[in-house]
Amino acid sequence: MRTSIATVSLSGSLTQKLHACAEAGFDGVEVFESDLVASEQSPEELRALADRLGLTLDLYQPFRDFEGVDESLLEDNLRRAEAKFNLMRRLGVKTMLVCSNVATATVASDEVSAAQLRRLGDLAERHDVRIAFEALAWGRYVNDYRHSWRIVELAAHPRVGLCLDSFHILSRGDDPSAIEEIPGDKIFFLQLADAPAVSMDVLSWSRHHRLFPGEGMFDLGTFVAHVLRAGYTGPLSLEVFNDTFRQTEVRRTSVHALRSLAWVEDLAAGELGDGQREAPRTLTRTSAPTAFDFVEIKAEDTSAVEVMLRQLGFTFRGRHRTKPVRLWTYGEARVILNEQQARDVEPTLAAVGFVVQDPKAAAARAHELMAPPVYRRTYADEVALEAVSAPDSTEIFLCGPSQGVDAAWVSEFENGEPRNSDGLISHIDHVNLTQPWQDFDEAVLFYTSVLALDAATSTEVASPRGLVRSQVMRTQDGAVRLPLNVPPWGSPSMAQHVAFACNDVVELARLARERGLSFLPVPDNYYDDLIARFGLPRETAAELRDLGLLYDRDDAGFYMHLYTRTVGNVFLEVVERRGDYEGYGASNAPVRLAAQAAAARDGPRSEDRDLGPVIRRRR
Amino acid sequence: MRTSIATVSLSGSLTQKLHACAEAGFDGVEVFESDLVASEQSPEELRALADRLGLTLDLYQPFRDFEGVDESLLEDNLRRAEAKFNLMRRLGVKTMLVCSNVATATVASDEVSAAQLRRLGDLAERHDVRIAFEALAWGRYVNDYRHSWRIVELAAHPRVGLCLDSFHILSRGDDPSAIEEIPGDKIFFLQLADAPAVSMDVLSWSRHHRLFPGEGMFDLGTFVAHVLRAGYTGPLSLEVFNDTFRQTEVRRTSVHALRSLAWVEDLAAGELGDGQREAPRTLTRTSAPTAFDFVEIKAEDTSAVEVMLRQLGFTFRGRHRTKPVRLWTYGEARVILNEQQARDVEPTLAAVGFVVQDPKAAAARAHELMAPPVYRRTYADEVALEAVSAPDSTEIFLCGPSQGVDAAWVSEFENGEPRNSDGLISHIDHVNLTQPWQDFDEAVLFYTSVLALDAATSTEVASPRGLVRSQVMRTQDGAVRLPLNVPPWGSPSMAQHVAFACNDVVELARLARERGLSFLPVPDNYYDDLIARFGLPRETAAELRDLGLLYDRDDAGFYMHLYTRTVGNVFLEVVERRGDYEGYGASNAPVRLAAQAAAARDGPRSEDRDLGPVIRRRR
Repeated sequence: MRTSIATVSLSGSLTQKLHACAEAGFDGVEVFESDLVASEQSPEELRALADRLGLTLDLYQPFRDFEGVDESLLEDNLRRAEAKFNLMRRLGVKTMLVCSNVATATVASDEVSAAQLRRLGDLAERHDVRIAFEALAWGRYVNDYRHSWRIVELAAHPRVGLCLDSFHILSRGDDPSAIEEIPGDKIFFLQLADAPAVSMDVLSWSRHHRLFPGEGMFDLGTFVAHVLRAGYTGPLSLEVFNDTFRQTEVRRTSVHALRSLAWVEDLAAGELGDGQREAPRTLTRTSAPTAFDFVEIKAEDTSAVEVMLRQLGFTFRGRHRTKPVRLWTYGEARVILNEQQARDVEPTLAAVGFVVQDPKAAAARAHELMAPPVYRRTYADEVALEAVSAPDSTEIFLCGPSQGVDAAWVSEFENGEPRNSDGLISHIDHVNLTQPWQDFDEAVLFYTSVLALDAATSTEVASPRGLVRSQVMRTQDGAVRLPLNVPPWGSPSMAQHVAFACNDVVELARLARERGLSFLPVPDNYYDDLIARFGLPRETAAELRDLGLLYDRDDAGFYMHLYTRTVGNVFLEVVERRGDYEGYGASNAPVRLAAQAAAARDGPRSEDRDLGPVIRRRR
Repeated sequence: MRTSIATVSLSGSLTQKLHACAEAGFDGVEVFESDLVASEQSPEELRALADRLGLTLDLYQPFRDFEGVDESLLEDNLRRAEAKFNLMRRLGVKTMLVCSNVATATVASDEVSAAQLRRLGDLAERHDVRIAFEALAWGRYVNDYRHSWRIVELAAHPRVGLCLDSFHILSRGDDPSAIEEIPGDKIFFLQLADAPAVSMDVLSWSRHHRLFPGEGMFDLGTFVAHVLRAGYTGPLSLEVFNDTFRQTEVRRTSVHALRSLAWVEDLAAGELGDGQREAPRTLTRTSAPTAFDFVEIKAEDTSAVEVMLRQLGFTFRGRHRTKPVRLWTYGEARVILNEQQARDVEPTLAAVGFVVQDPKAAAARAHELMAPPVYRRTYADEVALEAVSAPDSTEIFLCGPSQGVDAAWVSEFENGEPRNSDGLISHIDHVNLTQPWQDFDEAVLFYTSVLALDAATSTEVASPRGLVRSQVMRTQDGAVRLPLNVPPWGSPSMAQHVAFACNDVVELARLARERGLSFLPVPDNYYDDLIARFGLPRETAAELRDLGLLYDRDDAGFYMHLYTRTVGNVFLEVVERRGDYEGYGASNAPVRLAAQAAAARDGPRSEDRDLGPVIRRRR
C-alpha cells in the first residue's frame, strides 16, 4: 500500500520534512496547515520540490469548525474553504480534511450538517478537489465515525467522503468493525496513530502522546484489516502528535515512522486470511528468539570485567583467532570481551546475540523493517553472523541454534579452558538496556517488529536522581527478557547490566565472595525492612545480609539476586527465580540505584583501581 | 508555624536531603520509608545527624493497607506495625502515617476499621508513638477526609488521630470547610501539596505532578486557614511527588520548597481575620508592581542592540557616569545596555526593573521569601536600587515610582540626547523570559510570591524543534506582563525578548524600515492565511506584508506586531493593542519560531555582521 505521513508528526521546517520523508521512502505526505503557513517557500515551490523528490501531497489539513453552524457562519466558512481550495490548487493537493465542528456548531441536526457538507461538496467540485470528513473524538455533536458516516451518506455527494483516524475511534473504545459496512470508495483517507495506556482527557492524550503503530496499546492490525475489507485503496498515513517526535532528528524519525507502517501493513495482511488459508504477509515471517546467545562487552581494557567474571565462576574459553576478543562462559551464558576499535571506551554493553530459528530470515525481516545493518569483518572459516543496529546503537546479532553444547562460533576461540558445567549459572536471564528518553518509543517498536518481542510490564522506580521508567520487552515463554530503562531527562547516562540465571545464588555468592568479588553494598536498613515486610525469619535475613543478597517475593514465587559493583558503564547481576516469580525485583531497584549513586559519588575503591591479580584477597 | 517536608519530595540520598533541609531552614522532615531503606546510615546515625542539624524527624511514612482487613491479615499487619514502631524508636520519630487501605481491604465497615485502628492505637501506646490516619483519594473504602474522621472518632483512642493532606482532599473537589469541625488535637499532621489543572487519573496526577503551594490551582491559603481554625498546632509539611523536583539540585529545591510554605502561611494568616479586623500577616505586605521601569541587556559588545534601538526610534540618553553602561529610552520604555563584567557575553536579557510603591518593603518581602539578593556597586549620589535574583538568574530590580517624567536613576546618565516623546512607543508592554524546564515551577512561585503577579493564560506553541510552553505572569491591570517560555527538553537555549507598546505600529514600522531596521522575515503564506482566516481585505494584508507586520484578532480586539532579528540571545518586538485584546499573538508564534530557526540555520546575513554605522542603507 502507499505510505504517507502528516508533516505535523515530525520536527524541522516543511522542506526539511519533505526531504526526510522522501529519503526514508514514504510515497507521500499530508500537508499540515501550520507547517505551510510558517514556510518561506511558496505553494508552487513546495509542489515542485515534492515532485522532484517523488512525493505526492496527499491531503491538506485541518479545516476546522465547518458544519452544524448557522447560515451566516456557513457563508464565511465557505469563503474560508474557497481560499484553501485555491491554495490546494497551487499545491496540487486533491483532498482536504474537514474535522467535525468543535467550537462553533450550534445546530445538532444530521440533515443540516449533511446539507452544509453538500454545499461544500459543490464548491469542491468547482475546484476539482474533494472533502474527507472526520469525526474528532471531542467533536461537539459529531464524535463517532458511525455518525460521521451517516452524515456523509446523507450528503450523498461524490466529492464528500470520510476520513477515518484510528486514534479518534479507538481512544473512545468504539468498535471499529462497522467500518467494513462503509463502501471503500467513500473512505477518502485513513490516518493511523497508536497511543499509550494512560488515563487522561482525550484532547491532551491526542495532542501530546500519540505514538507510531506498534508502540502503544491499540490493535492496529485488526483496525487496518477492517478498512481494507471495506475496500479502501488510499494510502496508510500516519498522524502522530507527540511531544518527543516533534523534537527528534527528522530523518531518523521518518525512518522510524515508516518502519511502523511496514509492520502494521504486514499485521493487517495477516488478518485478511479467510480462516481457511493464511493470508500472504508483506514481511518475511520469523518467530521470536528462543534464547540469548551471548552478550558482548566492549572496552579499551576489559580486564576489570574479566576479573568479575572469574570471581563469579565463569571460565575463560579462549582468545578469538583473528581479533582481540576473548570469550568467557558459564553453562549457556556467554560473555564476549571485545577490545578492538575500543580506544578510550569504558566497559560498555555493545552487543547482544539472540538465538533465532532462521538467521537469514530474521535478517531479511530486519532489513525490510529498515534496521541499519552492522558490518563486522569476517575471515575465511569464520561464522558470518547477521547483525543490525538497535535505536540506541546496541548491536543485535541474529544467531542460529547451537548444534552441540556450544554455539558454532565458539570454536573460533582458541587456547581456553574447558567448559564449566557445575550448573550454578545456566544462562542469561535478562539484559537490561538503558534508553535515552528520545529513543524509548522507537526501541519498543524495534524490538516488537524486528525481534517479535512483546511489551510486557512497565514500572517506575525511584533513584536519587529522579524516576527511572522500566519497560520489559520479552518473549512469551520468558526465554528472552529485555528490560529497557529510561533514566530521568536531566540525568547523565545510566549503567546497563546483564543478569545471569543461577540455580543456587546463595552458594554462588559464597564462592564468589571467597574469590574476592566486590558486591554492591546493601544497607542494613534494607534487611530490617525485609523482615518487617515479608515476615522473613531473622536467620534468613542474616544470611542474605551476610552475602549481600537482595530478595523479593510475590504470590507466584520468590527471587534472590546479587549485584556486582559497576565497572565503566556495566555491572553484572546473578538471579535465582523460585516458583513462578516473573519479576525483576523492582522493589529493590531504588536500593540498588541509591547504592550505585553513592558508589559513583565516593569514586572507585582503592582495590578496584588495582586490578592486577585475577584471584583476589578474601574480604 | 513549624515547617517540615517529606524526604520523597527531594533528590539525593537521605543524608543529602537532611543537610539541604537544615541549610534551607526547615524545622523538620517526614522520613519517607524508601529513603530510609536505601540509606547506608543506621537509624541511630540518622537520628544523631538530624539532632546535630537541628532538624526534628516529625513523621514516619507511609504505612499502607492496614485497616478493613480480615483477622489473619490484621495479625500480620500488627506485626508489620510493631517492626516499624521499633524502627521509629531508634529514629526518635513519634508519629506514623497510616494511609487508608488500597490493596487488601475486604471489610467495608467503619466499626471494624475503627476497632482495628484501636488495636493499633493500643500497640502504639506500648511503644509511646501515635498514629495519623489519612484518607487516600484512591483508598478502596476510605477516600474522603470526613470518612477517615468518622473512623478516628469511632476508634476513640488517644494515640489515633488524623493526617490531612491537601492533595487528597482538593483533588477530589471535596469541600475542606468541614475540617473546622474536627478537634485540633485530633489532627496529628498536616501535609500540603498544590497541583496543576490537568485532567488525568488521580493516582498519576498525585505521583508525578504535585507542586509546591503557589504553583498550581489549589486555594491553599483557605485550606490552611480551615486547619488552623480547627486548632491544629503541628507543623506545615510539604509532601510533593513531582518528577522534576526529584531531579533538581536538592539544596536549591529545599529553598524553593520552604519559600512556598512561607508564602502559604502568610496567605492563611490573612484569611484568619474576623471580618472586622485584618489579621496580622507573616510576610511584609506589598502591592503588585505598577509598571516596568527598565530592561537591561548585557553583552561584551552591545552595539548591535544599540543599532536596533536607534532604528526603532529610541533616543540615546547618555552614558552612566561611573560604569560602561548606556541608556536608551522611548516614552517610558527604558533600555539599559551594560558592558561591565561582560567578557564573551552575547547580548542577553540580564535584568528587569519593576516600579513598586515601596521598594524597601518589596525588598524586605523578597528577603523573607529567601530570594537571593543581588549586589551591585553603587557610588556616592547614586540611587541604590534593591535587587534580587530570579530562579533563572535574571536580576529583578525593585524601583520606586518616578518623580517626574523619568525615573530618578536616569539622572546618573550623562551627555545624552533629550527625551523623545513623539508618543509612538509609550512603554514596555511585556518581557518574555525563557525558563529551563527545571526552573519553571519555581519561577511561577517566585513571581507569584515575591512580585504578587498572577499566573494567567498558559498555552503551547509549535516550534520546528518541539513544543514551547508559555505561561503568562501578570498584574491584574496588565501594566506588567511577563510571559515565561519553556523550550522543549532537548532544545538549546531560546532567545528572550522585550516587547514595546506602540500607538501606531504601521507608522513605526515604516520609519524603522527607512532607518534600515532588519525585520524578522515573515513568509507570504502567512499573509494568504490571514486573508483566509480573518477575511482581511487584500489591501490590508498587502500593507502588513509590505511592512513585515503580524496580526491577530479575537472577540475583544486586535493586535499588530513586528519582530526584529535576533542578536545574541535577544530580539525586540513592537506591539499595538487595539480594543481589549489581551493576548500575545500566540497563533503567530509558530511562524516567528520557524523564521528564527531558519535565520539561525542560515547564519547572520552579511549586513548584520558589519554593524558599523548606526544609520543603515534602505532596504
